[in-house]
Amino acid sequence: MKHTCTLTVRSYECDSYGHVNNAVYLQYLEYARMEFLKDLGFDYTSFRKAGLGLVVARVCITYKLPALYGDQLTIVTEPIRFRGAFGVFRQEVFREKTLLATAEVSWFCVNGEGKPTPLPPEFALKELKPSP
Amino acid sequence: MKHTCTLTVRSYECDSYGHVNNAVYLQYLEYARMEFLKDLGFDYTSFRKAGLGLVVARVCITYKLPALYGDQLTIVTEPIRFRGAFGVFRQEVFREKTLLATAEVSWFCVNGEGKPTPLPPEFALKELKPSP
Amino acid sequence: MKHTCTLTVRSYECDSYGHVNNAVYLQYLEYARMEFLKDLGFDYTSFRKAGLGLVVARVCITYKLPALYGDQLTIVTEPIRFRGAFGVFRQEVFREKTLLATAEVSWFCVNGEGKPTPLPPEFALKELKPSP
Amino acid sequence: MKHTCTLTVRSYECDSYGHVNNAVYLQYLEYARMEFLKDLGFDYTSFRKAGLGLVVARVCITYKLPALYGDQLTIVTEPIRFRGAFGVFRQEVFREKTLLATAEVSWFCVNGEGKPTPLPPEFALKELKPSP
Repeated sequence: MKHTCTLTVRSYECDSYGHVNNAVYLQYLEYARMEFLKDLGFDYTSFRKAGLGLVVARVCITYKLPALYGDQLTIVTEPIRFRGAFGVFRQEVFREKTLLATAEVSWFCVNGEGKPTPLPPEFALKELKPSP
Repeated sequence: MKHTCTLTVRSYECDSYGHVNNAVYLQYLEYARMEFLKDLGFDYTSFRKAGLGLVVARVCITYKLPALYGDQLTIVTEPIRFRGAFGVFRQEVFREKTLLATAEVSWFCVNGEGKPTPLPPEFALKELKPSP
Repeated sequence: MKHTCTLTVRSYECDSYGHVNNAVYLQYLEYARMEFLKDLGFDYTSFRKAGLGLVVARVCITYKLPALYGDQLTIVTEPIRFRGAFGVFRQEVFREKTLLATAEVSWFCVNGEGKPTPLPPEFALKELKPSP
Repeated sequence: MKHTCTLTVRSYECDSYGHVNNAVYLQYLEYARMEFLKDLGFDYTSFRKAGLGLVVARVCITYKLPALYGDQLTIVTEPIRFRGAFGVFRQEVFREKTLLATAEVSWFCVNGEGKPTPLPPEFALKELKPSP
């Protein structure tokens, strides 16, 4: 399953090069993952109230072309691994058909002490698993 | 050569988990690279006036432990590759002796059209090369 | 004329209180002013290429109620003063019918040296003036 | 009592004008208020654990001159009002002797339900009151 969402580059996200600053892409990727979760019905509020959290363990992002003020971006998010407490998303940032950046983001589920803990069944939605 | 700089986590850099948000680390790493350049005498203002830029091509960052409000962080930056228009830094984020995150950041030099171009000799400082 | 735009609160915009951080509201207000300009046909790219800039001179913002992750916000922007190089917007942030914040933002137009300069006629759109 | 702290403008805090973005000043002001509290011995961690919070009610900021990458800024913070649950700080941002921005920030103390509540005596430090 591939999830798609869109956003438009805002003025304050651009740095003195006139480009979206490299750190802002990680905000975009977080936004897209949260949209993915929301759209598949993951109840994030209950998840947090249960004392659980989703933590990013690793990000590898390759920047191919700069994004500019006003660009409409599409972010494609696809789970490529999921097991127990741990998963990986592949995420791609496009301006129309042009690929601007590509990333892999590893995450895990933590309990209230910050220790990795398997996602409880009610949150371990099948869409978090990669398509066979 | 390893360059070291320090910063203290600010309140607004922490997200609803009370942790430094994962995107903020990329800001910290950028800060540390700019400090590195400044401390070795790289004249960034002249560099920009010459129509040149430093662009991040790739970041791989592994988050090991969260940083919290008020933490004093040390960032160690070390060039591990440099040739022509292209280089790589290894960067590590510590709280005292504890390693919180480790990253590799690839960069290249671009001209006014955004094309890769070798660093002119006056900017290609020897400290940008990895120690032998 | 009142201009309206919407946005949804993103996870990374919330601080350790779980609220949208007070600085982020200024980003929202900037976003809404840029949308206002775009929607009335102000050619910001040409404006910048002409060496001109829009600079914020003053912001007074009153925070009434916190905005939370996922909130859909509506921002209403209305010019309440405009003359020569200088203008004022009133901006209000709503969650549905609930007013969360209200602001007045003073701005002026600057030339390449950063000096106030009247907006050239092709940019001094009538919609920048308050309704009579 | 006037409290003083310093910071250096970081690259990613500058927008496409090459200036510190207007929203970033509110982050600087928050940083300076937190430094003020820390330096006078306010135990923010205990304060938060007691279910209390400090909330910004209003900010009026006047921008006089832009701050640029690398600028060393001094922020002067002075309480000008404090009573019960409510207070006001005056804050000024300088580059050496040059005043770049001046602000008044109103705040109040809230309990766990977000209702205004007087600062408990152990947190109502006398330095929060304006000098007579």
